[in-house]
Amino acid sequence: MAELRREPILQRWVVITGERWEALVETMRRRRDKSGDSCPFCPGQEHQTRPEIFALRDPSTSPNQQGWSVRVVPNKFPALRIEGEIERTAEGIFDQTSAVGAHEIVIETPSHSADWESLTVEHVAGILRAYRERSRDLQGDERFRQILVARNYGPGLALLPHPHSHIVALPVVPMRIEGEIRGLLEYYTRKERCAYCDIVRQELKSGERVIRETPTFLALAPFAARYPFESWILPKVHGHDFGSINSDQLLELAGLLQRLAGALHGLVPELAYSLVVHTSPLQRYVEPRYHWHLEVRVRLAVGEGFEWGTGFFVNPVAPEEAARLLRERA
Amino acid sequence: MAELRREPILQRWVVITGERWEALVETMRRRRDKSGDSCPFCPGQEHQTRPEIFALRDPSTSPNQQGWSVRVVPNKFPALRIEGEIERTAEGIFDQTSAVGAHEIVIETPSHSADWESLTVEHVAGILRAYRERSRDLQGDERFRQILVARNYGPGLALLPHPHSHIVALPVVPMRIEGEIRGLLEYYTRKERCAYCDIVRQELKSGERVIRETPTFLALAPFAARYPFESWILPKVHGHDFGSINSDQLLELAGLLQRLAGALHGLVPELAYSLVVHTSPLQRYVEPRYHWHLEVRVRLAVGEGFEWGTGFFVNPVAPEEAARLLRERA
Repeated sequence: MAELRREPILQRWVVITGERWEALVETMRRRRDKSGDSCPFCPGQEHQTRPEIFALRDPSTSPNQQGWSVRVVPNKFPALRIEGEIERTAEGIFDQTSAVGAHEIVIETPSHSADWESLTVEHVAGILRAYRERSRDLQGDERFRQILVARNYGPGLALLPHPHSHIVALPVVPMRIEGEIRGLLEYYTRKERCAYCDIVRQELKSGERVIRETPTFLALAPFAARYPFESWILPKVHGHDFGSINSDQLLELAGLLQRLAGALHGLVPELAYSLVVHTSPLQRYVEPRYHWHLEVRVRLAVGEGFEWGTGFFVNPVAPEEAARLLRERA
Repeated sequence: MAELRREPILQRWVVITGERWEALVETMRRRRDKSGDSCPFCPGQEHQTRPEIFALRDPSTSPNQQGWSVRVVPNKFPALRIEGEIERTAEGIFDQTSAVGAHEIVIETPSHSADWESLTVEHVAGILRAYRERSRDLQGDERFRQILVARNYGPGLALLPHPHSHIVALPVVPMRIEGEIRGLLEYYTRKERCAYCDIVRQELKSGERVIRETPTFLALAPFAARYPFESWILPKVHGHDFGSINSDQLLELAGLLQRLAGALHGLVPELAYSLVVHTSPLQRYVEPRYHWHLEVRVRLAVGEGFEWGTGFFVNPVAPEEAARLLRERA
């Protein structure tokens, strides 16, 4: 039975799903050895997933049949379960919470191996629309405090190769978002300005870390990038909620993400990256001083262990160099 | 030219080494393709490393010749450079510091592929002694605020297979240690007790997450383990500085680590793990309320992308199950 546990010193939440180790070793072995298995995300395999929650599909087709272009289904192996009330309990000095939440999969395209660059911009906007619609829907559930949207792409990061993303609703605020909010509020207390707004202003002025600008968004290589080609996409005008993005902006963002993904493909051999939407917590934890944004991180096979072991980041590529290389290609 | 940069919101420090991207791609390619290259850490290849800083060796042999059992050398490709003064500067809203520090490699054994379990306990104690001696020596340098000791073992984590560890001295306190200190001080303010001391007490009482106990140390699976088989080794009596460990304790710790590594080898196929020493910052940042300890994390090939992308941890193995499995084998 899954539990959410909080580390008492760093106050970090962890989902403990509590599987049996022998079964897990067996799963890993199967996953590594399999190759001929049919893909549960391919058209014609709709019965292999749970019934769809949202889809963009040909109006003449029925749910859970072929004819879709984007499809959202509950994860068959969810880290959190959707039913039940939140119970917060203690075990001595330790805190835990029932692992209630949502864990959905966005199947991004019927094609088993299409990159975002090879889809139409309208199709990518449709994927982002699925993120938005599901975020808005999950925001209504009073048990949830945070929505996370994440896309893992490429070898070593994605478990299944068929392009997909995760949407997760959590009954707690994760440490990273909490840390960003704390930092933003400290900055706000000193300067009465949003730190992300200040970053947008300063980066537009200097230009050396700008990857690309559109009417609404700025793609940049952050000053203290942890990973080579780490990129942030920030709305140029302050806003705390990804769910409030309109349809024109979805299309604009889709075009920007396509160009960024294309540029990364041109630069990085065996590209693997992760894309995450950072947005304000929900309900009574809403923070209007938060500034929603996207973070893209590239994973290189080299030199990763050091960071993983120490929590101290060494990035071999200067953000100015990364921005220049991406700008030339995006 | 390397720089230490601080992310303005999370206040995280990152080393930007600023290599050329094309050169880096070439290095990754060479590293992947090579197999016949001679190992620079093997006996007879001492000229391939920089001159040794510390060694345990046969007294009849000379430095940088064969005859050593443990050898410490400066990293040939250091993330930080040892010469120079610390200069702290600003670029608009961003902070940076010159990347002055130490980056040393502990070559743990002449054997190219010996696991800790196959060495004598005295030999492993010698490796830990090298950690201690180098930590003590680097602590004297007033430019440094933190020493990190880290060991990456196994496929995907260690760049070179020959058993080795890293010792790094930093002119800043890394975010993870700062976060632990903040959490400890908050806890201390509320309860006037050390949170790690409370963890030791509670875990010894319940026993269900205890892996093994020795006179001085407790090895346990932490309540909110982020990774399967994540293990902490805590001194049972409060102490803030790893450097103050005595020779009997080194031997005791070596035995405990050998048993833990052996148990992990028995459980995890293609074992890869990382071992980190967490100790108090230095100089005027010394924090006597810190409780030094070791953290061991196992890296599984499965399910890692989600955490990497979101910063939200999902651990499939309950710490109670992990402790039981390790206890049976350690």
